[in-house]
Amino acid sequence: MIYFDNSATTLIKPPEVGEAVAYAINHFGNASRSFYDAAMTASREIYRTRAAIAALVGSAEPLNIAFTSSSTESLNLVIGGLVKQEDAVITTVTEHNSVLRPLYLKGCRLDFIDCDENGVLQWDAFEELIRPETRFLICTHGSNVTGNITEVKRLYDLCRAHDLTMILDVSQTMGLIPVSGDMADVLCFTGHKGLFGPQGTGGIIVNRRLPFEIVKTGGAGVHSFAMFQQNEMPDVFEAGTLNSHSLYGLQKGVEFILHTGIEAIHSRENRLTQLFVEGIKEIEGLRLYGDFSGGNRLPVVSLNIEGLPASDLAGLLWEKYGIATRAGSHCAPLLHQRFKTVETGMVRFSFSYFNTEEEIATGSRALKTIAEEYGR
Amino acid sequence: MIYFDNSATTLIKPPEVGEAVAYAINHFGNASRSFYDAAMTASREIYRTRAAIAALVGSAEPLNIAFTSSSTESLNLVIGGLVKQEDAVITTVTEHNSVLRPLYLKGCRLDFIDCDENGVLQWDAFEELIRPETRFLICTHGSNVTGNITEVKRLYDLCRAHDLTMILDVSQTMGLIPVSGDMADVLCFTGHKGLFGPQGTGGIIVNRRLPFEIVKTGGAGVHSFAMFQQNEMPDVFEAGTLNSHSLYGLQKGVEFILHTGIEAIHSRENRLTQLFVEGIKEIEGLRLYGDFSGGNRLPVVSLNIEGLPASDLAGLLWEKYGIATRAGSHCAPLLHQRFKTVETGMVRFSFSYFNTEEEIATGSRALKTIAEEYGR
Repeated sequence: MIYFDNSATTLIKPPEVGEAVAYAINHFGNASRSFYDAAMTASREIYRTRAAIAALVGSAEPLNIAFTSSSTESLNLVIGGLVKQEDAVITTVTEHNSVLRPLYLKGCRLDFIDCDENGVLQWDAFEELIRPETRFLICTHGSNVTGNITEVKRLYDLCRAHDLTMILDVSQTMGLIPVSGDMADVLCFTGHKGLFGPQGTGGIIVNRRLPFEIVKTGGAGVHSFAMFQQNEMPDVFEAGTLNSHSLYGLQKGVEFILHTGIEAIHSRENRLTQLFVEGIKEIEGLRLYGDFSGGNRLPVVSLNIEGLPASDLAGLLWEKYGIATRAGSHCAPLLHQRFKTVETGMVRFSFSYFNTEEEIATGSRALKTIAEEYGR
Repeated sequence: MIYFDNSATTLIKPPEVGEAVAYAINHFGNASRSFYDAAMTASREIYRTRAAIAALVGSAEPLNIAFTSSSTESLNLVIGGLVKQEDAVITTVTEHNSVLRPLYLKGCRLDFIDCDENGVLQWDAFEELIRPETRFLICTHGSNVTGNITEVKRLYDLCRAHDLTMILDVSQTMGLIPVSGDMADVLCFTGHKGLFGPQGTGGIIVNRRLPFEIVKTGGAGVHSFAMFQQNEMPDVFEAGTLNSHSLYGLQKGVEFILHTGIEAIHSRENRLTQLFVEGIKEIEGLRLYGDFSGGNRLPVVSLNIEGLPASDLAGLLWEKYGIATRAGSHCAPLLHQRFKTVETGMVRFSFSYFNTEEEIATGSRALKTIAEEYGR
């Protein structure tokens, strides 16, 4: 198999990730629940995972990082605990359902930043969208469909100027490009994609004190006689037994990134993406979705070949070449509506540090051959 | 180490659990997200985990089992999605904070079943507690402090007669004693205790159609153009990437139970508990908390020795004998208030199928020696 579905989950992990989780399952107790070695080890390794992530995002305070079971849970807890129904929120048409659906559920007013025909967001309209009741900018750092990255520094400055809270979905960017803990007020991340951790891990990075309401609660191993959960980071988001097993694996994934260097990872993935685009750009009937004019993008290439439904193309890639891609709408409904690809879908190729130039060459040759044989 | 903290998490797992998770981390894609082998394998193994749990609880329909990241999350989703602020709920003084705090958060009226001096719940008062606005009975199947088990059949009959929805917390009982999917309307379970699975796993078993409101939402890999999550089991609770890695490990834990037989597990754990109680019952100044008159109980023995704070006792057990127990309040505040052990706490011994008679004998000898040396 050639695995080009790393935006869904990274399947090729550093080997120490799986080893660490298996070790933890057989050696760790329940963190924060007692003082014997196995329980203390679980607590300590969870702290080290916080510290590794803090190092990755240049944050001074590991305890400003809370763990959840996924980026989806992170976004639910943060949106659920901060946004009120009477608020207005600015977001974008490139968002994933993990951002859109918690907002729809809240029933608040939404104002959308639109994008151009390459999926580039029209941020110039940002200040025009701010209403008296606007309280939040909630958006993705990088699109899981186009691979376009949003430059967030200017946006965060504007948010501060207008007293808006900025919540950034870094599910697609963390571990792939430099992500800094002070890029926004809150960052929501997943463990099983760019960070090479196991599924079932994710978290919330908080850059300043915010009035989170508790939306998930339970036992915490401490303050058991209080009626309500502690409203401090990281406890406010961490009810119940913390997943020390998988978080130990996530620690190993993040350490791999720290050792390798985020710039080395980004540069290798960029080269693979450029090679791929070079190899396919002459294909007749090819439609690429995204901004390929600059160098700074995610290693994601979504495309269609005229006359061939996306699911057929992905099916042929898999059946004939053993190439795993993702056809469909990638849980990003508004962007597909924008691109008029609701019916056809797109085929997404997403690369990782562990892909090789040879795999890229095989992929682009396969695409060419299929286009010649099956394209219109 | 002698590990007697199995009510917190089972540390000794069948070896295939850790092996399975490590394998999954290196071989599984993202379930329900595509059709290449690695993604299909993830989907298939998640279904097999549902089927294994369905077999354990005698349920005909694996899709009536939804997965979450913990019993705490299960209880938050179920209580959050069913109970309304204007409802009255009957619960008990033996509940864990994972039940109490989501109820406190809801702000609904709570009526408590009290217990006697052995922690036995006074269920005779149940019908008297039913008000016109009472809609739910939400309670634990077995206490994580006393090890007492509640006989739920009669309660469920009463719930049906009074049109109440019964939600049962089986965190402490599933995998240890027979638990049946039709014992209540909803069962909330954890994976990392009696089921021998990894931390970060749990779920919800639903026995009849209920009007769950969606409280957690996001991408699902299907129906991406709908604004709201599917309101059907199991999708209603499963937003975001399902944790196929750890769920594959949980499958192996549950299969171990199916092969060994729940009766064999229960009987072995009962024998270990009886041996332990036999070995310690003559200790001067010993106070046991729980009903030890009958045979049907969990392998949990909470105790104090007069003149010795619980944390000192647990500390001595660990430092001098390498015995891991849990001192404190075990996230069950009302029961400790009832027992007047808020200040002292208790020391909890909780056994598993993998403990040996020799470990039990070492444990009871250690307790005797410490009581002689340090007791009042």
